[in-house]
Amino acid sequence: MAMAYMAIRIFVTGGTFDKEYDELHGRLFFKDTHVGEMLRLGRSRVDVSVRTLMMIDSLDMTDADRELIVSNCRQCGEARIVITHGTDTMVQTAGVLARADLGKTIVLTGAMIPYAFGSSDGLFNLGSALSFAQVLPPGVYVAMNGSAFPWDQVRKNTKTGYFESTSAST
Amino acid sequence: MAMAYMAIRIFVTGGTFDKEYDELHGRLFFKDTHVGEMLRLGRSRVDVSVRTLMMIDSLDMTDADRELIVSNCRQCGEARIVITHGTDTMVQTAGVLARADLGKTIVLTGAMIPYAFGSSDGLFNLGSALSFAQVLPPGVYVAMNGSAFPWDQVRKNTKTGYFESTSAST
Amino acid sequence: MAMAYMAIRIFVTGGTFDKEYDELHGRLFFKDTHVGEMLRLGRSRVDVSVRTLMMIDSLDMTDADRELIVSNCRQCGEARIVITHGTDTMVQTAGVLARADLGKTIVLTGAMIPYAFGSSDGLFNLGSALSFAQVLPPGVYVAMNGSAFPWDQVRKNTKTGYFESTSAST
Amino acid sequence: MAMAYMAIRIFVTGGTFDKEYDELHGRLFFKDTHVGEMLRLGRSRVDVSVRTLMMIDSLDMTDADRELIVSNCRQCGEARIVITHGTDTMVQTAGVLARADLGKTIVLTGAMIPYAFGSSDGLFNLGSALSFAQVLPPGVYVAMNGSAFPWDQVRKNTKTGYFESTSAST
Repeated sequence: MAMAYMAIRIFVTGGTFDKEYDELHGRLFFKDTHVGEMLRLGRSRVDVSVRTLMMIDSLDMTDADRELIVSNCRQCGEARIVITHGTDTMVQTAGVLARADLGKTIVLTGAMIPYAFGSSDGLFNLGSALSFAQVLPPGVYVAMNGSAFPWDQVRKNTKTGYFESTSAST
Repeated sequence: MAMAYMAIRIFVTGGTFDKEYDELHGRLFFKDTHVGEMLRLGRSRVDVSVRTLMMIDSLDMTDADRELIVSNCRQCGEARIVITHGTDTMVQTAGVLARADLGKTIVLTGAMIPYAFGSSDGLFNLGSALSFAQVLPPGVYVAMNGSAFPWDQVRKNTKTGYFESTSAST
Repeated sequence: MAMAYMAIRIFVTGGTFDKEYDELHGRLFFKDTHVGEMLRLGRSRVDVSVRTLMMIDSLDMTDADRELIVSNCRQCGEARIVITHGTDTMVQTAGVLARADLGKTIVLTGAMIPYAFGSSDGLFNLGSALSFAQVLPPGVYVAMNGSAFPWDQVRKNTKTGYFESTSAST
Repeated sequence: MAMAYMAIRIFVTGGTFDKEYDELHGRLFFKDTHVGEMLRLGRSRVDVSVRTLMMIDSLDMTDADRELIVSNCRQCGEARIVITHGTDTMVQTAGVLARADLGKTIVLTGAMIPYAFGSSDGLFNLGSALSFAQVLPPGVYVAMNGSAFPWDQVRKNTKTGYFESTSAST
């Protein structure tokens, strides 16, 4: 059970993960994804191919955007997928993906602090999501705060910023 | 299958992971582990308890040190364990642990670049190891470069610094 | 002419220098100043005392705020002063200080990128401002981009984010 | 007295400033200088030209190396020079430069922590040295810890790692 040969698809959709600081206007904005740089920094040797689908704040994500994500997940050759996503509507997108019933292992992850700001949870989360994607059975999961939550047993606590299980048994 | 409730034990043994820079003598040395700080930075909410067993370069690790690691893994209450370890003899320690046949999920991880140096693979690896430890079946694994290698199918390529599978099928 | 004995007063007024990232709301905000931490990081041994006068975006700075800065510069015992300030109205505050004719060496500095974001010009600028403050004759200066500009010969180029001399001779 | 037009020569000689971490062997080593990157990070607009003379630990610096530094300082067109240098023999090199009596403003600086390690005093020191070089009269100075020490009134305290004045008046 060596896992290094598994091909993983990474779809980038934006979110805090990839926000940058615009020094001229003192605002946060999107430019290019940092996922490639983060994988190099993490010295990852997992066989991944990265594709940017959109670069948006997840509060701005529309139904059409979610359909685009679903269709890309359906059509790609890989059976194991990581999606970087803003945390605010990550659970909602997970639900749309689950209801599409794709028979693949899909792990959504993100960050509370932009990677470009030096001290981000993004690198930790990317290592976590990529690992869960290699070993979890088909299904849709949210990988945040070191755990993988099934899509229908998780919510983001907007007061603390942590994801927590809604499962009665936990 | 919510995983947040799983208790994970983390044993710290040193390695590059935890090396610091001694500015008076221009040397690398060990002080305290950064694992707690890294878990905070990663915003981890996994239920872990961290214990430092030793703080050494893995090239200096003796048979007695490895016995100490084995006995701690045997005696701790948790069935899922992450061990931070220098990369040079990580595979050797994994073998000792495997032969002890503890019936637990044990994941060894480390770093090629000290966490204190700002741009380390350690945070990525810690997220990865902690995730693999939650879902892999009992056994001993090396989690490096984004993959989890079974203990008897991995070697460190000392020329590249990457861990690679020795399994024929990959 | 050893300069280590010179007492320097540092007045903190906020600005990009001290902005932090609020991960719950994805916004920039002010908490405490990083000047003390930056001086430690820079291993500064200059005899300074730091006082926070306000913690605001310089676009929000009022005439009353500027009077507070002037009166603090007048009343403090030190003849050499560094002021951390937002870049947008730094030149305007420098003018108010100059017209107060305090007979002291006053150096305003700031940053285009928050120090908390890891890769900031703030640490470079603080080293620069603190050094200029020790050796320039009485007057009011803006220390940005490695240079010290007299207060009446400088403007911020809002297109590039760089400060530039308005002096004909340069 | 706008200073932005001043041409400054920067000579790089190595030292902790420019050490990197060799992840394959766990050692510190020299590759290329970080001075250019540091000036970009600091958003410096000072007119500088950077030349690497050597890339060595200052404990390994020979008389011939010091003669090379002196001759480069003598021959370059600029009257204001910053030299990056290991801290261990920085004061010794300053003495050799002073005795060469070049009639220029020469400021030596360095770092206790490698820039590549993320949290370095180097960026602060570079901002400081570059500023002192623009305003101090001809002479040879050591710019460390936020101060500029005349070459014959300074020593490195090897116990604390701080440079301190040997002048009776301080």
